[in-house]
Amino acid sequence: MSLARPFLALAESLVEASAPIVRRHFRTALEVDDKADRSPVTMADREVETALRAILRERAPTHGIIGEEHGRENEHAKYVWVIDPIDGTKAFITGRPTFGTLVALLEDGRPILGIIDQPILGDRWVGLRDEPTLYGGRALRTRSCAHLGAARLSTTGPQYFSPDERRAFDHLATATRFTTYGGDCYQYGLLAMGGIDLVVEGGLKLYDFAALVPIVEGAGGRMSDWAGRPLDIDSGGQVIASGDASLHDAALARLAEGLG
Amino acid sequence: MSLARPFLALAESLVEASAPIVRRHFRTALEVDDKADRSPVTMADREVETALRAILRERAPTHGIIGEEHGRENEHAKYVWVIDPIDGTKAFITGRPTFGTLVALLEDGRPILGIIDQPILGDRWVGLRDEPTLYGGRALRTRSCAHLGAARLSTTGPQYFSPDERRAFDHLATATRFTTYGGDCYQYGLLAMGGIDLVVEGGLKLYDFAALVPIVEGAGGRMSDWAGRPLDIDSGGQVIASGDASLHDAALARLAEGLG
Repeated sequence: MSLARPFLALAESLVEASAPIVRRHFRTALEVDDKADRSPVTMADREVETALRAILRERAPTHGIIGEEHGRENEHAKYVWVIDPIDGTKAFITGRPTFGTLVALLEDGRPILGIIDQPILGDRWVGLRDEPTLYGGRALRTRSCAHLGAARLSTTGPQYFSPDERRAFDHLATATRFTTYGGDCYQYGLLAMGGIDLVVEGGLKLYDFAALVPIVEGAGGRMSDWAGRPLDIDSGGQVIASGDASLHDAALARLAEGLG
Repeated sequence: MSLARPFLALAESLVEASAPIVRRHFRTALEVDDKADRSPVTMADREVETALRAILRERAPTHGIIGEEHGRENEHAKYVWVIDPIDGTKAFITGRPTFGTLVALLEDGRPILGIIDQPILGDRWVGLRDEPTLYGGRALRTRSCAHLGAARLSTTGPQYFSPDERRAFDHLATATRFTTYGGDCYQYGLLAMGGIDLVVEGGLKLYDFAALVPIVEGAGGRMSDWAGRPLDIDSGGQVIASGDASLHDAALARLAEGLG
């Protein structure tokens, strides 16, 4: 049994609290504010994170919390919850139902539990370290894809890469079957489900990727930074996920060649 | 009353025939074939188009048909149906529910009726010339957005642009609020609904854009090629849609500047 299992009920209660808030605001003409980095944020993002923090303070008072909108509390605790109330805020604002609420639990800085919840479509991916990733109660497997030439590559958008990263991504893309754009966290759910073989991104923060690691790995995939290092509380920026773990090194090599 | 209205029941019966076929194949591990231009196609694309052509031959034998997968029949008729069985085949293959079945009717080469049907989400946009665009029976209005700096720009992916077009798109993008990627026909539905302000694409074919024109215009938007010319049976390639029609000329000017 996964050491993360005792925390699953609390994790699920978080996304069950977020879903009605998100649904209430979806495709309404919400005011969009700019954050310091010019990324957009809405009342929905803030309201979800406030609600989830209140639940965590009540039910897990000794645990830490790191969230996208409201900062860090007790972040050096053994167990730290990581929350992205709406991953894919631009998708949410434009009306695409491919954003998600992300909830992760770190143990000693490493992700051991992750949930992607898409409340409009009713999609929920649940990953627990050392257990199969579940989607609607069904265990998922990534797609077998041992060769880059057959791989379906994806990223949210080219604008999140630095010029060097964009060149490296394009170099990888030319070696794959095709590239699709858009999707934020939803891409990693589709990778776990076998629809996508590679997701490569730049500029990710802890709250963007922490929940994805147990979901990708529990479905048979591999996830790391672009240097092949595992992702933990100190990681950030370049992230890559491979559905077929045997594809990972070839993709990393191609990125390194492109960074050149 | 729109001169397209007598054809609406037939158009709706087409997307009602396509929806169960598409749903049956979605997120199954379908074989993906390469077409001559290396774009992917599945049995689902072919099966939908075959079914829709059979209905049209039965119910509108004097009309022409142009489809993505099975070519042109009687294309010089006064009324010509244009079918894209799955617009966004890559989205369909990867499991994103943001593809759509497109049905359009041309009168003397100009689109007078268009439907975007997304059978997984149950989204359906219906556009008839000179009538308000409908979504689930509700009339849609695009968003007011008179300034490029506030505009939400979107395109399916940068790889569909030539290098010159990509430079022009990036030049436009730097003048907007933000850019999102992905979505094929679904982007134009979101534009009609007020979530997106500008969609700019390259490399589109008649079956990609014909259905979108009545939907965008019936919601108050404007659609043309990058030179500002209306779209008809002879158009192709560069397409732009503006939610706020007063934004259109500024966006065209910015693209022209970027093309240099």
